[in-house]
Amino acid sequence: MNKNLAFRRFFPLFFCLFFVTAYAEDGSRLWLRYESDGQANISGTFGVARDELQTNWNGGPVVLKRQKGMPKDGYKIVSDGEQIRISASTDAGLLYGAYHLLRLQGMGNVGKSLNIEESPMYEWRILDHWDNPDGTIERGFAGHSIFWENPCEFVIRQYARANASVGINGAVLNNVNAKPQTLDSDNLKQVQWIADILRPYGIRVYLSVNFASPIRLGGLTTADPLDKDVAGWWKQKVDEIYRLIPDFGGFLVKANSEGEPGPCDYGRTHAEGANMLARALKPHKGIVMWRTFVYAPNDPDRAKQAYKEFQPLDGQFLDNVILQVKNGPIDFQPREPYSPLFTSLKSTLVMAELQVTQEYLGAANHLTFLAPMWQEFFSLVKPASLKAIAGVANVGDNINWCGHHFAQANWYTFGRLAWNPNLTAETIAREWLAQTFTTDKRFVNPMTDMMVSSYETVVSYMMPLGLHHQFAGGHHYGPEPWYTAPGIRSDWTPAYYHRADSLGLGFDRSSRGTDAVSQYPDELRDQYDDIRTCPEKYLTWFHHVPWDYRMHNGRTFWDELCHKYDEGVHGARRMLAIWDSMMPYVDKERFAEVQRKLRIQARDSEWWRDACLLYFQTFSKRPIPQDVEHPVHNLDEMMKFRIHITNYENPECGYSK
Amino acid sequence: MNKNLAFRRFFPLFFCLFFVTAYAEDGSRLWLRYESDGQANISGTFGVARDELQTNWNGGPVVLKRQKGMPKDGYKIVSDGEQIRISASTDAGLLYGAYHLLRLQGMGNVGKSLNIEESPMYEWRILDHWDNPDGTIERGFAGHSIFWENPCEFVIRQYARANASVGINGAVLNNVNAKPQTLDSDNLKQVQWIADILRPYGIRVYLSVNFASPIRLGGLTTADPLDKDVAGWWKQKVDEIYRLIPDFGGFLVKANSEGEPGPCDYGRTHAEGANMLARALKPHKGIVMWRTFVYAPNDPDRAKQAYKEFQPLDGQFLDNVILQVKNGPIDFQPREPYSPLFTSLKSTLVMAELQVTQEYLGAANHLTFLAPMWQEFFSLVKPASLKAIAGVANVGDNINWCGHHFAQANWYTFGRLAWNPNLTAETIAREWLAQTFTTDKRFVNPMTDMMVSSYETVVSYMMPLGLHHQFAGGHHYGPEPWYTAPGIRSDWTPAYYHRADSLGLGFDRSSRGTDAVSQYPDELRDQYDDIRTCPEKYLTWFHHVPWDYRMHNGRTFWDELCHKYDEGVHGARRMLAIWDSMMPYVDKERFAEVQRKLRIQARDSEWWRDACLLYFQTFSKRPIPQDVEHPVHNLDEMMKFRIHITNYENPECGYSK
Repeated sequence: MNKNLAFRRFFPLFFCLFFVTAYAEDGSRLWLRYESDGQANISGTFGVARDELQTNWNGGPVVLKRQKGMPKDGYKIVSDGEQIRISASTDAGLLYGAYHLLRLQGMGNVGKSLNIEESPMYEWRILDHWDNPDGTIERGFAGHSIFWENPCEFVIRQYARANASVGINGAVLNNVNAKPQTLDSDNLKQVQWIADILRPYGIRVYLSVNFASPIRLGGLTTADPLDKDVAGWWKQKVDEIYRLIPDFGGFLVKANSEGEPGPCDYGRTHAEGANMLARALKPHKGIVMWRTFVYAPNDPDRAKQAYKEFQPLDGQFLDNVILQVKNGPIDFQPREPYSPLFTSLKSTLVMAELQVTQEYLGAANHLTFLAPMWQEFFSLVKPASLKAIAGVANVGDNINWCGHHFAQANWYTFGRLAWNPNLTAETIAREWLAQTFTTDKRFVNPMTDMMVSSYETVVSYMMPLGLHHQFAGGHHYGPEPWYTAPGIRSDWTPAYYHRADSLGLGFDRSSRGTDAVSQYPDELRDQYDDIRTCPEKYLTWFHHVPWDYRMHNGRTFWDELCHKYDEGVHGARRMLAIWDSMMPYVDKERFAEVQRKLRIQARDSEWWRDACLLYFQTFSKRPIPQDVEHPVHNLDEMMKFRIHITNYENPECGYSK
Repeated sequence: MNKNLAFRRFFPLFFCLFFVTAYAEDGSRLWLRYESDGQANISGTFGVARDELQTNWNGGPVVLKRQKGMPKDGYKIVSDGEQIRISASTDAGLLYGAYHLLRLQGMGNVGKSLNIEESPMYEWRILDHWDNPDGTIERGFAGHSIFWENPCEFVIRQYARANASVGINGAVLNNVNAKPQTLDSDNLKQVQWIADILRPYGIRVYLSVNFASPIRLGGLTTADPLDKDVAGWWKQKVDEIYRLIPDFGGFLVKANSEGEPGPCDYGRTHAEGANMLARALKPHKGIVMWRTFVYAPNDPDRAKQAYKEFQPLDGQFLDNVILQVKNGPIDFQPREPYSPLFTSLKSTLVMAELQVTQEYLGAANHLTFLAPMWQEFFSLVKPASLKAIAGVANVGDNINWCGHHFAQANWYTFGRLAWNPNLTAETIAREWLAQTFTTDKRFVNPMTDMMVSSYETVVSYMMPLGLHHQFAGGHHYGPEPWYTAPGIRSDWTPAYYHRADSLGLGFDRSSRGTDAVSQYPDELRDQYDDIRTCPEKYLTWFHHVPWDYRMHNGRTFWDELCHKYDEGVHGARRMLAIWDSMMPYVDKERFAEVQRKLRIQARDSEWWRDACLLYFQTFSKRPIPQDVEHPVHNLDEMMKFRIHITNYENPECGYSK
């Protein structure tokens, strides 16, 4: 991390200089391969749209036209061969239309005759930044915050531009584990400064708030949401914010979760807490995004907690409260079934929280294209049942923004899916690849395949067949299925989730176990409850699967587990081989950087396979099948070490104690 | 090494106890799975033969009979159904016959009717121990010397028994880089003690001598072989030795090689030096084994040196001098063509020096069965052209003798081939596996295949297609084709041997290059000289091969190089998978130990492939073919490190600076 600290000190200046002086292929330009004039736009959103087209559009004349009666943020693009007309009822719509045109240009297929009509699925398309006041980013793998500690106006503007280009219209500027100082008047001036930069790009700012702020910032003796002084304090604070930022978006709240304060501290419900804040925000049209990520220590099944706590509150939330529910019932695991809250909250506004940053998917080392994962989610949680969508951002001050060049694709994808959740992974990959690298089909075709298959590959070498939370203690990068520590909460150890024993592997959440399946609608409940009909990708999530259980393909469960891990390793190697063959189509700089990461990924995949199979083998007592590659590490040696999150980026060794 | 040192301090006692108390499957019993009574045999060689049969033979009565007129060390075994008769003209012959019978028993197929007649190809079948007076072993990977510093009589006797069981009848007790103190009178008493232990097993002792001994031990001012005082000193010293050891075998000499003193220091020839020693030994029937391993710094082609220096001396050596020539012209590389001295010395006695210890073949970490390598040698150097055979031993005080359980097979193989160079690798592997592990065909069949193919696998992942000496500086274990150091002799750097450039790879020893091919007989000369007829396994040994040279299989040379390395890696993984499936047939202890080593080997094979291909790729500028696995390490990171000789045995990291 020393390097990063050193780098960071000089970074803003360098970065700012960079944009106006040279275009090294360092990834800083994202998918926006066209120019930016580098100047602050002083004429608002319409001006941004106009300037982007004036600077970057290479085709014929474009007319931007305001037109009433169109959906919010929607636009039409029509061409009659000579002239192109973009119409929208708001300037934001015009801006999105302009970026649509530039996207078509970037993909090399504008076409002669355009007749496009677009409008977003969700009004709120928000990136959550888990950025701390000191500039660090929780679960961020691309350096420090672009908002806090030495922010650079130019960088924030480029960030805004990237967001706007894919329709993202909100940013929560700070960590859900929020410090009370967030709402300090001095800090709010910084928020105002950021909001002013983002505004022309159609982006509203939001803040995560600490529920105990009235005590820790306001000097009150309680934060009880039913206390009049508390409600009054919040109202005053909200009014102060809106004086500075008239279009402020609202609050994001993590309450009574992992040690954060909340209404339950005073015997109040989440609804009482959220509604109190909502009342303060309502006059200003602000919203409360209230997270459902809660789980108590020693609960028999963590996966059931959020449902148990929030489902009974259905219907009690005000209409400017949106419950923000993580896609799965646990915590952004490589693969989870959807959270049953999505199908059980009938009278409450709900939004999905997806994780763009790869906390559990290889951080900034592994190429993991997340579109297939989110498609899987939307295939069960119908997009129309959601009010909004949030993504935990992967953006930092690294020159390439996201640490891994291909992690940019997940930022891009989040925006595109928040606009239109029905886009396919393949479509998005093609768009992004063509804009970011080249439109050459010899590159785009194989790389699209590689990106789309990457998710299944990563799941296979990390946690196939429903496994989850097998990560090393202290971080969420390498494998450590054996991890435990004295006095640790059991639900913070892998054994809580894998439940390996001489009989089999997996967490019995069927009706014979914790009955978590009962939280799902009847049809799914029955499907998941029966080991023979449960999708095999969720097998150990819902069942304690006997080692000799016969899979659909005829293999025993143990053999299939071995094959899955082996497929993952071979998949990682195949990704590397495909990338290597892309050398003719990619600039040297990005080629080398991605190749280096893919090599780490291939090595890590072996580590994952070996750690998990050898450890589980101590329970299964079964041989690794002959037709798969056998582990090359020794379990006892692996157990002495932890894979370091930076892995081989640290030239010392890669594996630290 | 600390562990070894600590272990060593207590080892002799432990080891001695071990043999008489318990039979843990720690490899200490070698292929001699039958019992030893642990007592010194006081009745000579005949007594050993009788006792081995009395203790271990499970069949019918055996008669040992001395019978004149049979070849030295030869024997007959005849059975008439009831009685088995072993006859030989010497007690040693009877002993070899007894071990033959026990070998048949160990292989589980004695048969009803025996009619065996055996005699060895070579009178001298000698192990060379590169053991130093302080107990260390040069290029030894199995602990410390069993002869020097705290020797254990029992261990030496077990060693003798193992040797005798495969017909080895001589041991050079100390390093060819010999200290003058070797011939010190005190030290000679220690040699006498060892000789007395070995004698009943038909083994004579030999010593390596330092040519400057007359100066450094005798106080003379010169070691000039033509100086009368020098010759006199040697005669006196030899007489002293024979008073202590009447059957002393003779001297082994490394002279004027790698800094050792020799006759050339005084303007004398190797013949003058060797003959002077031979005259002193002649009255006692001792021999001089004079090594031809010489090479001058900055010579245009090290491979030509030994021939240039010794071929002109052909016919000048006395008849008790044997020139000891390493199998290849360089130095025990994974694969070398044979040394042309073997076919050019017409009037000189010649013996082959093979290396049993795996100095260049993975040390005690890699399973490399050397029989195929030595068969390859004997296919070109006809066994009958040799007078004797020497093997550089791999024996140390480790509990399993050789560091790797399968390295024992190379000791076994050396003895068997020294007796009969026409035995096939498969025959020897089957013999050894059945005696050492089990006669179960489900084990012996696949493991025989695995052992026989291991050599080609190791060559493929280390140095295929004629590559040689690509080892890391400071040791001969890991790859470092880029290695160099300020002021270093060029022939001590890999670049001297690989000669990589933008055109191709390899050392041009054809008639257009150094013309080393001219040292071979005409037919071979022509074959090696033409790149199209040169065996591809020697391609870069004799030619600077263009990257796009078309191989017989149609691939370019570069692509074939990539494929070879990839085959090596996959071969190493296959060995591991085969071994893993042998678990039911092998005791837990040896299974785990061999598995651990095979895992190291699989990891190392990747390291070799990646280091060599990525480095050579900086010259070839060609892509790794799509259908092979791509390197997973980064060249710059590998170049910062050296693979440690103990590799992953050291739990720290495996790769040290």
